[in-house]
Amino acid sequence: MSATPFTHPALGALLGNQQVASLLSSEKEMTFMLDFERELAAAQAELGIIPQKAAEEIAKITGSFEPDWQKLASKTAQDGVIVPEFVRQLRDELSDENKTFLHYGATSQDVVDTALVMQLQTIFRQFKEDLAGVLRRMSDLQDRFGDQQVMAHTRMQRALPIPISQKMKRWSAPLFLLKAEIPELEEKVCKLQFGGPVGSLEKFGDKADLLTEKLSEKLSLRPPGTCWHTNRMSLSSFANWLSQISIAMAKIGQDIVLMAQNERGEISFKASGGSSAMPHKQNPVQAEVLVSLSRYNAALLAALHQGTLHENERSGAGWTLEWLSLPQMIMSTAASLRIGQELLDNVAEIKPIAS
Amino acid sequence: MSATPFTHPALGALLGNQQVASLLSSEKEMTFMLDFERELAAAQAELGIIPQKAAEEIAKITGSFEPDWQKLASKTAQDGVIVPEFVRQLRDELSDENKTFLHYGATSQDVVDTALVMQLQTIFRQFKEDLAGVLRRMSDLQDRFGDQQVMAHTRMQRALPIPISQKMKRWSAPLFLLKAEIPELEEKVCKLQFGGPVGSLEKFGDKADLLTEKLSEKLSLRPPGTCWHTNRMSLSSFANWLSQISIAMAKIGQDIVLMAQNERGEISFKASGGSSAMPHKQNPVQAEVLVSLSRYNAALLAALHQGTLHENERSGAGWTLEWLSLPQMIMSTAASLRIGQELLDNVAEIKPIAS
Amino acid sequence: MSATPFTHPALGALLGNQQVASLLSSEKEMTFMLDFERELAAAQAELGIIPQKAAEEIAKITGSFEPDWQKLASKTAQDGVIVPEFVRQLRDELSDENKTFLHYGATSQDVVDTALVMQLQTIFRQFKEDLAGVLRRMSDLQDRFGDQQVMAHTRMQRALPIPISQKMKRWSAPLFLLKAEIPELEEKVCKLQFGGPVGSLEKFGDKADLLTEKLSEKLSLRPPGTCWHTNRMSLSSFANWLSQISIAMAKIGQDIVLMAQNERGEISFKASGGSSAMPHKQNPVQAEVLVSLSRYNAALLAALHQGTLHENERSGAGWTLEWLSLPQMIMSTAASLRIGQELLDNVAEIKPIAS
Amino acid sequence: MSATPFTHPALGALLGNQQVASLLSSEKEMTFMLDFERELAAAQAELGIIPQKAAEEIAKITGSFEPDWQKLASKTAQDGVIVPEFVRQLRDELSDENKTFLHYGATSQDVVDTALVMQLQTIFRQFKEDLAGVLRRMSDLQDRFGDQQVMAHTRMQRALPIPISQKMKRWSAPLFLLKAEIPELEEKVCKLQFGGPVGSLEKFGDKADLLTEKLSEKLSLRPPGTCWHTNRMSLSSFANWLSQISIAMAKIGQDIVLMAQNERGEISFKASGGSSAMPHKQNPVQAEVLVSLSRYNAALLAALHQGTLHENERSGAGWTLEWLSLPQMIMSTAASLRIGQELLDNVAEIKPIAS
Repeated sequence: MSATPFTHPALGALLGNQQVASLLSSEKEMTFMLDFERELAAAQAELGIIPQKAAEEIAKITGSFEPDWQKLASKTAQDGVIVPEFVRQLRDELSDENKTFLHYGATSQDVVDTALVMQLQTIFRQFKEDLAGVLRRMSDLQDRFGDQQVMAHTRMQRALPIPISQKMKRWSAPLFLLKAEIPELEEKVCKLQFGGPVGSLEKFGDKADLLTEKLSEKLSLRPPGTCWHTNRMSLSSFANWLSQISIAMAKIGQDIVLMAQNERGEISFKASGGSSAMPHKQNPVQAEVLVSLSRYNAALLAALHQGTLHENERSGAGWTLEWLSLPQMIMSTAASLRIGQELLDNVAEIKPIAS
Repeated sequence: MSATPFTHPALGALLGNQQVASLLSSEKEMTFMLDFERELAAAQAELGIIPQKAAEEIAKITGSFEPDWQKLASKTAQDGVIVPEFVRQLRDELSDENKTFLHYGATSQDVVDTALVMQLQTIFRQFKEDLAGVLRRMSDLQDRFGDQQVMAHTRMQRALPIPISQKMKRWSAPLFLLKAEIPELEEKVCKLQFGGPVGSLEKFGDKADLLTEKLSEKLSLRPPGTCWHTNRMSLSSFANWLSQISIAMAKIGQDIVLMAQNERGEISFKASGGSSAMPHKQNPVQAEVLVSLSRYNAALLAALHQGTLHENERSGAGWTLEWLSLPQMIMSTAASLRIGQELLDNVAEIKPIAS
Repeated sequence: MSATPFTHPALGALLGNQQVASLLSSEKEMTFMLDFERELAAAQAELGIIPQKAAEEIAKITGSFEPDWQKLASKTAQDGVIVPEFVRQLRDELSDENKTFLHYGATSQDVVDTALVMQLQTIFRQFKEDLAGVLRRMSDLQDRFGDQQVMAHTRMQRALPIPISQKMKRWSAPLFLLKAEIPELEEKVCKLQFGGPVGSLEKFGDKADLLTEKLSEKLSLRPPGTCWHTNRMSLSSFANWLSQISIAMAKIGQDIVLMAQNERGEISFKASGGSSAMPHKQNPVQAEVLVSLSRYNAALLAALHQGTLHENERSGAGWTLEWLSLPQMIMSTAASLRIGQELLDNVAEIKPIAS
Repeated sequence: MSATPFTHPALGALLGNQQVASLLSSEKEMTFMLDFERELAAAQAELGIIPQKAAEEIAKITGSFEPDWQKLASKTAQDGVIVPEFVRQLRDELSDENKTFLHYGATSQDVVDTALVMQLQTIFRQFKEDLAGVLRRMSDLQDRFGDQQVMAHTRMQRALPIPISQKMKRWSAPLFLLKAEIPELEEKVCKLQFGGPVGSLEKFGDKADLLTEKLSEKLSLRPPGTCWHTNRMSLSSFANWLSQISIAMAKIGQDIVLMAQNERGEISFKASGGSSAMPHKQNPVQAEVLVSLSRYNAALLAALHQGTLHENERSGAGWTLEWLSLPQMIMSTAASLRIGQELLDNVAEIKPIAS
């Protein structure tokens, strides 16, 4: 065991997804946090809120900043969020006259939430590619075996024969929809967070809207309309989509597990899982694991939803609960998509109904 | 206690919603099941699949059918679904030559799922009205108290003053969005279920698509594209929306509970909960209950998602799990919407910050 | 649909349990609430806290009390709990000099929680009998088929032959343990709730402990040690046990579903589920439903645990969440136990491995 | 973000627990896996099942074994479990005549489950110490402030004054119980797993029981009675206990968050969380985070329970789901216990009710 099998030295190869893990990394997060502070300063300088010189110095130091992670850690333990110490370290590198112009009028949650959605942007891109990869493989399988008749089963009993293409159409139908939902969902999720300490951007007076728009544009994010410090619905919609992906992948896995039973014998694999005790075993490991991941994700969805109830103007308890649950959901989904593709690649043959 | 507090003789008044309970009733379900069989026959007659006379007799008997609920119950216990006995009872009333033309080429799940989405159509209508009711009340409160300054709190500590209108805007923002999502979501959810025993409509040859379209039209439902016997994503999206509604209502509740603390004293009510032991108590019962309902709903969302993994061509286990979880989610949401409106009606005063 | 399938006129026969529903009813709850008030008065009279005459009048009126349910409902909606109006109605029937001696020094939660555990006592009794019923049927099956060899399957693939008795031993092992845990668990759960408004029994001075003990004894409950207004661990342990029962029953169901696949053909039934479209189908409905119930229960366990976090001295939000989740868990478990017994009764034959 | 905040370079200091992370590590797991193979051989040699020489060589190589983690990873991805390749690597180091005597008659699940409970043994020890640490700090606080009167709050409203010692007693009561449950729970959980490929230890004939007992003794574990390949109740009981711990810690956290509101002002801290925007803020970060961790744990409990439904003689899908959920539950609980102690250490003062 380790804190999570996604990063376990051996289980990580079974259950992880290195590509997505790197998109989700603290290094990427740090880059986006620096982007936020730099572009905030740039936008504020353009609107005459802070001096141009300050924005330039901020651009310079954020470009070369090397955080002291140990101090970040120890102060995060106290502050509950990385930003106060992050800003302090950055200010240390600024000349005295510009210190106050960094992070001007912003709050911790603005930085962290914005960095999060910037990470999610890269993850959308990856998942879109992965969904396309699953669908391409499915289409290949249909080309190879589509006309073959298999026995349909309802309520776990033999029903009537159908062509395997029909079974596969039902595997791919939800995945097509989930892929098609990306543009709208990404638009919903990937919006700037910017509200200042109590969500009112009170420091910027009538420049607040313009500043928000400018900053959104610079970060290639949607302007938020209103700050979403306590309105986490875009994240719960995203999480719902993640769980739906892993359920759609588990549908394939579950069906293949059942088809692969020796007694049904409808499918065979190029490679399958070995046993430490029974050399004759051919375990459909990838297919099984898709089911596990979907059930984990479905349970985590409840945790995430619980975490979207934020009290008052900003909540520590709700927010922290999101940090606990969302990354695990992303990793589960990422693993589902990787494993699903490997599983489809691994199909050797789909067998016709014995007559 | 009783099986669920939503229908408990006393707790039902606290936690139920009679209007929605009646939309969700077995009587309404029966009506829609009869609609399905009648319109199926009508559509099939128009396409020459069954005789016109058969459709007419089916229309006649479905119009006056009185189910034998006791037999329905005892056979449902065995069949796992109400339809086989329902069809048997209907056939009993048909003349011999027309018996086989009832439920022709359909399967149990076609009837039950279609009746379900027809019930959901009525529930969408009700929830749309309720959401409008919440928003209207919020707007009234803003008119009455909007300019008043209240203290913003972040991480449960005093932050800075804001006008209460800002707080209320954050209460209503998610509800506006959830209301605006109804047309698209309703379109997604309210689609005909029609696949026949193994989802292939094999009895209808090249008339299958036309029949599906015709039947959809007659029932005022969207044609399904492909049958969704195992693709339950529209239901999990619906359930996600339900949980988001109850979280949005709980946000109002949670904030009001905190504002109503005697030590904060920012809000007072026309009527509030009494105590059996402390006559001085003014308990913000409605506000508390909104939180309970949202946490229940969030947990049920996981049950519903678990239930969307359907194996093979049709699943008994997954389907039954939906029947267990979805009605409770609907009732929780319905209760949230009713109670939320009563809570807002119940606000006597929002107090200015003591200077 | 209806608020819950447990009480649906047709689905209730599939998913309900009438016996347990009646133990869980509001009528039984009312009886136990009256018991609480009567025995509280009796105990207080014995200790000279209230006059003997008051206790006698209270005994008299609680013996014949007919609640006005409509008023109970409307006031519960406001108070969040049934007790204030319940006490008011009872006091209406008392002579003026005795009114204050009813519910003396108690709080709503004392009444409701105590009535709850008294209901749970009867449910423990029922479940003990049901568990015994399952185990007896399993033992019968072992007698009939125990020596027969069946193929063991690991990771859903054929492994090696084992005698069916071994399979059955693994079905019954967790049930034996769960049954054996009843006395200790019942002792944990079935304890008096008695704390007064803020848990300190402040009205009773140094007689508090003696009163608590006497009242416990009269109600055949364990004295609580300290009041558990906010310590709900006994309920979460109970809920964990409920979920474990339904998982243990689902293990039997899941295995039988797999054995009953036509391709494995290891088991046959006396009666099985019919299909509205395919007369040849023999659906293992009971076995499937056991799986659904366990997944529902497992998800509800999270709701119940969420509800055990009670803030301050007494919590409305946490408490109400328990009322929503616990009855559904009890009903799921009750259904599992009933259906499991029927499933085992329904086994016609276990087939030997074809050689 | 990172796959889990428990190991994030900054958030790990807020949400992690290094001590427990190291007990949960893959290195420790490997050590225990080697212990299993070594003691299995030793026990088998004593019973004359394998040659004494074989046991000696196995002891030697397991003492110095350095796994090739890269190969372990790539084969685990295929086999779904680390053991087949682990055994292969070990066999590589054995002389030809002894190769088959390693892992003799055992199965992958025997190794992994046994190593798991050996890790859990060390975690029980740690949690027992942590629980004692919490209780000791609570007792210190009671010594310092116990007589002070605070206002009790019920349903989030002022009720009546109580001494703070009463509040603290309700904080510690569940923790005392949870600590007292350790011996019995540890006994339940920490049992050898040993069943061989299909749970029947068929290779050992009438020596099976003796071998099981001997092996248990050598590993300081309880003999299992019967193998628990599919009976995961001891793990779900353990998980329930973990969630109960984190709820009990969250009770303290939630209450302190509420007491620490500026408007209640009942408690102050030596150090508290800073804000990036509002220097006057004193955020009760540790107290908030306890609530987040408990809600996460409660949701994960459902995942774990879902994972305890194992089909057939051994399940890949259920087992893998345990690997996903249990470590996160352990880490959440570990974090709760660490943070709770720091929170109590951090209390500067509890304030008397202003008169």
